[in-house]
Amino acid sequence: MQFNIKQKEFYAGLNIVKKAVASSNTLPILTGIYLKAVTGKGLQVKATDLELGIEYWIDVDIQREGAVVLPANQLINIIRELPNEQISFKVNQEKWQAELNCLSSQFKLSGYDPDEFPSLPEVDIPVTFKMPANKLLDTIKKVRVSTSSDETQPALTGALFEVKPEKIRMVSTNTYRLSFIELNYKTGIEDDIKAIIPGNTLQELSSLLNNDGEVEILINENYARFDFEGIIVISRLIEGKFPNYELVIPDEFNSDFVADLKRMQNSVKRASLIARLDSNIISLIVNEDKLEINSLENSSGYAHEEVEIELNGSEQNINIDAGYLLDVLKILSDEEIHVELIGPLNPLVIKSVAEASKFIYLIMPVRSQN
Amino acid sequence: MQFNIKQKEFYAGLNIVKKAVASSNTLPILTGIYLKAVTGKGLQVKATDLELGIEYWIDVDIQREGAVVLPANQLINIIRELPNEQISFKVNQEKWQAELNCLSSQFKLSGYDPDEFPSLPEVDIPVTFKMPANKLLDTIKKVRVSTSSDETQPALTGALFEVKPEKIRMVSTNTYRLSFIELNYKTGIEDDIKAIIPGNTLQELSSLLNNDGEVEILINENYARFDFEGIIVISRLIEGKFPNYELVIPDEFNSDFVADLKRMQNSVKRASLIARLDSNIISLIVNEDKLEINSLENSSGYAHEEVEIELNGSEQNINIDAGYLLDVLKILSDEEIHVELIGPLNPLVIKSVAEASKFIYLIMPVRSQN
Repeated sequence: MQFNIKQKEFYAGLNIVKKAVASSNTLPILTGIYLKAVTGKGLQVKATDLELGIEYWIDVDIQREGAVVLPANQLINIIRELPNEQISFKVNQEKWQAELNCLSSQFKLSGYDPDEFPSLPEVDIPVTFKMPANKLLDTIKKVRVSTSSDETQPALTGALFEVKPEKIRMVSTNTYRLSFIELNYKTGIEDDIKAIIPGNTLQELSSLLNNDGEVEILINENYARFDFEGIIVISRLIEGKFPNYELVIPDEFNSDFVADLKRMQNSVKRASLIARLDSNIISLIVNEDKLEINSLENSSGYAHEEVEIELNGSEQNINIDAGYLLDVLKILSDEEIHVELIGPLNPLVIKSVAEASKFIYLIMPVRSQN
Repeated sequence: MQFNIKQKEFYAGLNIVKKAVASSNTLPILTGIYLKAVTGKGLQVKATDLELGIEYWIDVDIQREGAVVLPANQLINIIRELPNEQISFKVNQEKWQAELNCLSSQFKLSGYDPDEFPSLPEVDIPVTFKMPANKLLDTIKKVRVSTSSDETQPALTGALFEVKPEKIRMVSTNTYRLSFIELNYKTGIEDDIKAIIPGNTLQELSSLLNNDGEVEILINENYARFDFEGIIVISRLIEGKFPNYELVIPDEFNSDFVADLKRMQNSVKRASLIARLDSNIISLIVNEDKLEINSLENSSGYAHEEVEIELNGSEQNINIDAGYLLDVLKILSDEEIHVELIGPLNPLVIKSVAEASKFIYLIMPVRSQN
């Protein structure tokens, strides 16, 4: 195995796949990055923690074919610190030891037999469709926040991905809040798909995707595969049943108001500075022309904020988790926020509806502690 | 107690003194910031952890005099999140509760009786002198790195500050390395002073000092006081005897060489990526025209770096801690580094000598493990 590669391209490629490197040491080889040199194709780099796999090809001339697995952290640290010059890379295929030379620097790194590296699952192609990368990225950002971290309910640690012939939906909930997003988009598929994508996969996808180009998506019973800009992300799906979210989203309301997003965000953030000393609950008092945001009574302080609003319907009063409200305010990019309310024991609903997409964010109320 | 203050000025003032706020909760009032409004003088803010105290005056119009101690973290977080507008601040002097209003935000914060806040010690003035802030800052940066973190030898956790009529010296050592800096500077004092300044005080001084103006320094038996740009820093001195550093600094050498600082830094950094997997020891092989930097033999890898040098004297070979070498390479701003060597069992000495100052940095060798 032998090739020359520019430091910058090598470093960029390693950074793409490192997100799938296993962080725990269950199987030492999984803390490594698999490198394979193929004449005419270049250098394949890949990593997997068995849940998630990422694969990428770097376009380089190969002098001798071969493969090796090298410890990810050490390899990436070394490549990062080398100057942006040509690196000559060769591997002793008996000892699985790589030798890197760059100007007057020389490194030797011991690795693993590449044949022992688990191969990423083949996702044979029962269903495949394409969607613009920017739409997938936006969708993921809006649902990621509501996934649960409670491993005892695995289905809630991911997001439900529903694909229909002319619609794409993603939904997530930790039972205290819920994100729902629906895009009107011709997928061209014939039969509906439902799959639960792990929260960690959503996290890594959102850091790898950018706003250009298309993503090809393949889903079978156990895996989803996302293919974009030369990057392949393969993720195990979460087994289990996702709760019937349609029952939870209210279709009527008694009051709704519009407020400036930025002002709302600043006010909730400040109120939360006091509220978080306790349980981070804030009380919202929705009046005719203003929203009052108050911290609940507690020993160490008190916060009171006012935001101008335009209210339709009756005045309202609800206690919610300030963090849940802040999260959605950070995600939205509209100038205004639209809020719907039924009463103090029903969820607060934030809606952002555009021509081809609908986003609904739901926060369960907290019963008044007084 | 009542006054109006611009958010930005209040925030800046609180940030100056917060470095002296106690982080542990031994005495709750010490986790607060003392605020005192004095007609005609403005707002005094101060904090102390009993080792270090910082005091600062903010120029504001006072409507009603008074004082209070408020929890530092909460106060600073709230002020940071408020818009840059006028904040009206008043205190209920019976409940020690502050009320802050800014546009449509209102906060109440419970605090402490200011009479229970320990006063910063008066440093009566047996010795006082002035020096340019940029020189003090540079001196502190060069010695701070060599202070020890071993609390069993308190004298080594600080730096020795020696002031003579025409010289200022600062020295620190953790017994494995040593920083020595000497400035030729007319202090105007009559009798020599020796004081050990705590490492933490050096840390905070280096973050508060900038390159403008002068610092007035007062030292008595127990305290040092630094007065600059309206900021007063009072620090307890460390009791005990500082080791006789003059015995340790060699005055002769067998070989010396000059190398490019930046190249040296990059090479040591890279070699350290492998060396730190073990004990972070590197071996330096000083040849006629090049310095070789190697990681020691270990299981997981090998690093070899070469840096061009100009050598006078015999070839050398020494093992040292890569971290100690990197630290000094980061501090120096010269283009080149000047290194002196005696042999493998004697310290390696780095010197940076300018017209009015002399900096010596000494690294003890590590015996070869082979």
